[in-house]
Amino acid sequence: MLFMVRMDVHLPPEMPPNLAQEIKAREKAYSQSLQREGRWPHIWRVVGEYSNYSVFDVAGNDELHDLLSALPLFPYMDIHVTPLAHHPSDIN
Amino acid sequence: MLFMVRMDVHLPPEMPPNLAQEIKAREKAYSQSLQREGRWPHIWRVVGEYSNYSVFDVAGNDELHDLLSALPLFPYMDIHVTPLAHHPSDIN
Amino acid sequence: MLFMVRMDVHLPPEMPPNLAQEIKAREKAYSQSLQREGRWPHIWRVVGEYSNYSVFDVAGNDELHDLLSALPLFPYMDIHVTPLAHHPSDIN
Amino acid sequence: MLFMVRMDVHLPPEMPPNLAQEIKAREKAYSQSLQREGRWPHIWRVVGEYSNYSVFDVAGNDELHDLLSALPLFPYMDIHVTPLAHHPSDIN
Amino acid sequence: MLFMVRMDVHLPPEMPPNLAQEIKAREKAYSQSLQREGRWPHIWRVVGEYSNYSVFDVAGNDELHDLLSALPLFPYMDIHVTPLAHHPSDIN
Amino acid sequence: MLFMVRMDVHLPPEMPPNLAQEIKAREKAYSQSLQREGRWPHIWRVVGEYSNYSVFDVAGNDELHDLLSALPLFPYMDIHVTPLAHHPSDIN
Amino acid sequence: MLFMVRMDVHLPPEMPPNLAQEIKAREKAYSQSLQREGRWPHIWRVVGEYSNYSVFDVAGNDELHDLLSALPLFPYMDIHVTPLAHHPSDIN
Amino acid sequence: MLFMVRMDVHLPPEMPPNLAQEIKAREKAYSQSLQREGRWPHIWRVVGEYSNYSVFDVAGNDELHDLLSALPLFPYMDIHVTPLAHHPSDIN
Amino acid sequence: MLFMVRMDVHLPPEMPPNLAQEIKAREKAYSQSLQREGRWPHIWRVVGEYSNYSVFDVAGNDELHDLLSALPLFPYMDIHVTPLAHHPSDIN
Amino acid sequence: MLFMVRMDVHLPPEMPPNLAQEIKAREKAYSQSLQREGRWPHIWRVVGEYSNYSVFDVAGNDELHDLLSALPLFPYMDIHVTPLAHHPSDIN
Repeated sequence: MLFMVRMDVHLPPEMPPNLAQEIKAREKAYSQSLQREGRWPHIWRVVGEYSNYSVFDVAGNDELHDLLSALPLFPYMDIHVTPLAHHPSDIN
Repeated sequence: MLFMVRMDVHLPPEMPPNLAQEIKAREKAYSQSLQREGRWPHIWRVVGEYSNYSVFDVAGNDELHDLLSALPLFPYMDIHVTPLAHHPSDIN
Repeated sequence: MLFMVRMDVHLPPEMPPNLAQEIKAREKAYSQSLQREGRWPHIWRVVGEYSNYSVFDVAGNDELHDLLSALPLFPYMDIHVTPLAHHPSDIN
Repeated sequence: MLFMVRMDVHLPPEMPPNLAQEIKAREKAYSQSLQREGRWPHIWRVVGEYSNYSVFDVAGNDELHDLLSALPLFPYMDIHVTPLAHHPSDIN
Repeated sequence: MLFMVRMDVHLPPEMPPNLAQEIKAREKAYSQSLQREGRWPHIWRVVGEYSNYSVFDVAGNDELHDLLSALPLFPYMDIHVTPLAHHPSDIN
Repeated sequence: MLFMVRMDVHLPPEMPPNLAQEIKAREKAYSQSLQREGRWPHIWRVVGEYSNYSVFDVAGNDELHDLLSALPLFPYMDIHVTPLAHHPSDIN
Repeated sequence: MLFMVRMDVHLPPEMPPNLAQEIKAREKAYSQSLQREGRWPHIWRVVGEYSNYSVFDVAGNDELHDLLSALPLFPYMDIHVTPLAHHPSDIN
Repeated sequence: MLFMVRMDVHLPPEMPPNLAQEIKAREKAYSQSLQREGRWPHIWRVVGEYSNYSVFDVAGNDELHDLLSALPLFPYMDIHVTPLAHHPSDIN
Repeated sequence: MLFMVRMDVHLPPEMPPNLAQEIKAREKAYSQSLQREGRWPHIWRVVGEYSNYSVFDVAGNDELHDLLSALPLFPYMDIHVTPLAHHPSDIN
Repeated sequence: MLFMVRMDVHLPPEMPPNLAQEIKAREKAYSQSLQREGRWPHIWRVVGEYSNYSVFDVAGNDELHDLLSALPLFPYMDIHVTPLAHHPSDIN
């Protein structure tokens, strides 16, 4: 089941740089692990913003919330989830 | 080059049903032709809305505008385009 | 899987009253049939508005879109869907 | 009398983690006590957000405000209340 | 139980003037009947707009929805309801 | 002359509790003094929010601004003022 | 007493041109009569829009609503009123 | 003096196609005449929308309003004007 | 050339009071000097808000930006500028 | 390929002035270097705001994101990017 997810990151300006780096490193590792499992099939940077559009492929709402709330950057992000369905014009 | 495109369709309620059907049939054929060419790699229905999120893969802004403004439903849609870049966490 | 759905109805003022009545009657029958099946467990009127908050219980996104887009009032509604997950404080 | 309540939690990033844990523990206990009394019949997590949709069943507006303003997280939440009425299509 | 209600009237410009007058006359009679019963204790015009702020005093949400949806202008209004509670600084 | 005033209070989370209490006590005393003078005839709590809807009865705009800007909570509030006129359906 | 008023005009595209001209002519005459009386001391066009910012000088809210609701273009305008007070830096 | 102008075109769907074509032809001729005079130095299509961002170079506000309100599409456009100043980093 | 300018002041709550007073004193002196020169002909307080509507009369956009960005409160204000033109109904 | 970019700068009020100056100096040098290369052909100040409208001319989305995210002020700006296409009325 697919979901479109937009994430906007807002790190507090007073966060120590090495803490920020450490969180981002964990975020990247976690994201790539989910990508490899096929549960996070797409991630794109929004041009000019510290934001991404992502597509998640999960069994359902609870799994998606568990994945998102475990993101190391979760406390610093605005996240908006849009459920997706098959489009009748989709050739796949 | 990738772009996220959200389209929201607003057909006027007084449009004759057979005209609406004819426009939608042309829209579907046109969309599937672009999908087969690889220029419209993803199209998803937004659950509960007459809307879609789509990803386009084109050579640039002018090509994208030409594709979108040629959509048979173009006069009846609100379209918003977001340019996408490679995300540093993307494993692909 | 649960979803919160808000529906706002906008019937065009020029719609003939008997057509409006006929659509509303079909909407009610359809809604009650889904309620009896357990797929539409809650529907509440928003006080002062021609709107409702509803909870749907479905197998996934595609089923929910199929249910919503088949509503007789679908062409006359703004619908917004929010996916819901189990809350850690929920005693059920 | 039913009310739909949306709560969005915004803990200040500089709050000490043990203080945050203590407030959340009191919030959970308080919520579950109200659930057991039947005054907070539904609580759902909004997927991807530190937010919930809840339904309250109270005698009236004053009781609802007393319950909500006594939430341990009240100073850290945006709360929006929508009064609900019986829907004519509701089979219950 | 008190509720603040804002009503914004949007009559379609093509409505025949005598129909508009007839609806407004029924609206006024209905409003004044509710005022006399004490269920609509305040109604104020918003300066410069075809709108009002009103306070309703009713037994609960269902009664309020019944009153509002029976307004002759109901199909032509945007209505927003805010539940009110006693304020701790109120001297009454 | 009547004005509808909505006030939303935002105390900074780092304000010392006794300072907050002292400001709120002065706010309450000031509000009640204006209520007794008849210049602040109505104050209602918005359910679930640290906010109020109030009606002021003053000689004019300058007097209203003087009253509002002297509120002890003024530096911590978003205030929005709507001028009110007599409504033609008002029976008073 | 001064009020800032923004007016945005939306004439329906299907209005016959001579009717539009007749309404605009009455609007202009009415506006100029109020200007000569000193009750509408300022009127400015918003560049690029069929809109104006105006300042009214009236005895109070009721007079202002009477003036505005008598505008020939009133049924075709969105109007927003902001009450103004003396500014402490004003040298007049 | 430079101004950024965004124009969004909304032709009514019931406008006869030849009337729309005639208006667009006049719009194009008028725009190109102003471009040749140097008063409309930039015009860009917003990708995916019937909209443009334009830069105007005029002697002042009155001239700009005269130019914009004379556009053949003026009655069918939402226009927003932003005054521009020299930027201290501009190398020109 | 005239411009409508709305300014909303947001002083950080932690600013030392004497610093705030010193900035406001410089702001007042600067404003009054521009008023005396005729470049800031109107300034009005928005009732209930730490905000003003002002009219500036300047030679052009660059002069206006220079004036506004030199305001002592500039770093603490949201400022929005609307260019104004002569209104055809204006009797002056 | 052209893009319209709006940048709004929000420096935290507690940033030491010499740090702010140092960042702004690097921003200016970086901007001017891109201007000289032809990749940042236009930059205009928005009158009254710490903001700019800019036009970028780049090979594509990835290049634009690399340029923007390398801005020294990037962590302190809200940036919004709009892709631009050739306009059919453009005489160039």
